[in-house]
Amino acid sequence: MKTSQRSVVDPFIVMDVMEAARAAEEAGRSIIHMEVGQPSTGAPSKARARVEEAMEADPLGYTVALGLPELRKAIAALYKDWYGVDLDWQRVVITPGSSGAFILAFTALFDAGAKVGMGEPGYPSYRQILTGLDITPVGIPTKMENRLQPVPSEIPEGLDGLIVASPGNPSGTMLGHEEMGALIKTCHDKGIAFISDEIYHGIQYEGRAVTALELSNDVYVINSFSKFFSMTGWRIGWMVVPEDHVRVIERIAQNFFLCPPHASQVAALGALESRQECQQMVDVYAENRRLMLEELPKIGFDKIAPPDGAFYIYADVSDYTDDSKAFCDEILAEAGVAVTPGIDFDPVRGARMLRFSYARSTEDIREGLKRLAGFMAGRGV
Amino acid sequence: MKTSQRSVVDPFIVMDVMEAARAAEEAGRSIIHMEVGQPSTGAPSKARARVEEAMEADPLGYTVALGLPELRKAIAALYKDWYGVDLDWQRVVITPGSSGAFILAFTALFDAGAKVGMGEPGYPSYRQILTGLDITPVGIPTKMENRLQPVPSEIPEGLDGLIVASPGNPSGTMLGHEEMGALIKTCHDKGIAFISDEIYHGIQYEGRAVTALELSNDVYVINSFSKFFSMTGWRIGWMVVPEDHVRVIERIAQNFFLCPPHASQVAALGALESRQECQQMVDVYAENRRLMLEELPKIGFDKIAPPDGAFYIYADVSDYTDDSKAFCDEILAEAGVAVTPGIDFDPVRGARMLRFSYARSTEDIREGLKRLAGFMAGRGV
Repeated sequence: MKTSQRSVVDPFIVMDVMEAARAAEEAGRSIIHMEVGQPSTGAPSKARARVEEAMEADPLGYTVALGLPELRKAIAALYKDWYGVDLDWQRVVITPGSSGAFILAFTALFDAGAKVGMGEPGYPSYRQILTGLDITPVGIPTKMENRLQPVPSEIPEGLDGLIVASPGNPSGTMLGHEEMGALIKTCHDKGIAFISDEIYHGIQYEGRAVTALELSNDVYVINSFSKFFSMTGWRIGWMVVPEDHVRVIERIAQNFFLCPPHASQVAALGALESRQECQQMVDVYAENRRLMLEELPKIGFDKIAPPDGAFYIYADVSDYTDDSKAFCDEILAEAGVAVTPGIDFDPVRGARMLRFSYARSTEDIREGLKRLAGFMAGRGV
Repeated sequence: MKTSQRSVVDPFIVMDVMEAARAAEEAGRSIIHMEVGQPSTGAPSKARARVEEAMEADPLGYTVALGLPELRKAIAALYKDWYGVDLDWQRVVITPGSSGAFILAFTALFDAGAKVGMGEPGYPSYRQILTGLDITPVGIPTKMENRLQPVPSEIPEGLDGLIVASPGNPSGTMLGHEEMGALIKTCHDKGIAFISDEIYHGIQYEGRAVTALELSNDVYVINSFSKFFSMTGWRIGWMVVPEDHVRVIERIAQNFFLCPPHASQVAALGALESRQECQQMVDVYAENRRLMLEELPKIGFDKIAPPDGAFYIYADVSDYTDDSKAFCDEILAEAGVAVTPGIDFDPVRGARMLRFSYARSTEDIREGLKRLAGFMAGRGV
């Protein structure tokens, strides 16, 4: 059997780095994980307690395709708490991770051959999911002076959709109320569907992240329990869509996914009751970020975007390499630190960039920084 | 924002029936569930115990995209046990339900505009997922004398792929070694990709289900923990693909799903250790089937396909209606029994067919049959 043209998607390189790190650990080496964007902590305690109870009391069969109404209502309430936004809970759709939300959103909004823009650097799977769906991704190279976020004047003609992420991955930079508003207005004027990836909301250090829903109801907003709520492996997220898109999304979800994982929906209900516990993790990331911002420049990584949120630092390493993948392999082999090459996020300029994740324990971050210092010193930096 | 052309997929009607049944229950009515294809039991005890332990011991973060190697190995061993097939575990891909497997398979195998055949009646989401991916579904009307399964002479010209299901849904009929072999040979001769949906394997009453892997390695086989292992809501399944397709699938899975739900993978490991317990559920279905086959003809549902496996009976109700959806609404409203109209499985001939599921407790089945008898008697049958 032959494979399709659209199956020729790039690997998600961070997953390959993860696999190389795992293999090194299996071979007995100690590896500090600064590659993957996930907390080292598990689901919050109330999330786990809820699942334990539910496994005894309920067969945990299929739920309705849009997810448990109780969870959809609890998420709508979060928008009131976090942003002061009144949100009709019926616009909230529970999804199998933000990944599932992207598949639903792209299928609902775009036909084969459509063009969808995204800032570069950015989350690599946007590009690959679009390609897999026969939609054309259009990279928009962003500038450091715009904090690595796209601006209205850079939006190319002929787009059918635009995806923005704030806080961004890998940059960690945020769009303010005004910048987000200007992008949404441009998209509405040009008939471009606007998708806001808000997966790092709640993990912020300078001010608060703005949701696109503060500015318009005619947008898709995508979020997840993976990051702030520390539930990556549970594959549970959500999406807020315009009222008249709910039934369209429901039909696709019924057929594509049947329902999001039931146990994960139950866990998510518990996570929403554990916001204090989640905030304590953000306090750890804040300390890690402080350490990173203090130490990285001393080590030789001094060209970095201002990380307002998320748990990443994106560093320009053009003084040391023009092959970030090889540089990462070298750091893993010699220093025992796993980091992600920029080419995952920016196919062109990423060859001179690295992404450091600081989502693990502060002890790990200290050890990682020590090892990186030794590695760079060994190179004569 | 406007929605895409490909988002115009039919609803999965059984999900709507489920929702109507739920609303009736919320309003205080007693409803017997013969609509949805899921066991009333939850995950096997060892599955639940494993998850409970893992939630304490492990953060349950992302796994590698193809799934836990331990689980892939355990599934390969199942092929030895169930069919005597030696299977390289590296060809086993863990997926977010069989739904996730279909998305991966269709994306890996077919470009936009490709044509994929399937027997009618059949699982409705094949058609809708294909449509959502801009692939053209081609229904093959099957005949009762062929046990509602397609035969080589009926395979139309110009197909890029063929999906078969044995045991079938809604028919419950199985393809023997010879019939399956003839279909695979025809597909290989014509360069048609062959996909075998084996989700009901293990739930069989007359002989044993044949896996396509007994006949060829150049096929896609899709299965799940939802049915025999009674884990519908956990959204965990698997796929066996040709060796040279594994890396292609891995790249798509990395980007589309990141990984299958981690807790569900752990539960699946426990389920594989609980096969005795799962077999006891099949014994319940066997008793339910016996009751159904005894009672349904007396009530007036006497034109049915021979249900070799799964937990469905597909009945011709053309003596009573040519609008199966309205007939189902009537049965739900008057008898308090939820059943699924045939139009979900066969857009044309399904208007004169019903699907009864007998996956619940025997007590429920007895009560459902009693109510159906009363309903039909009231119609003067």
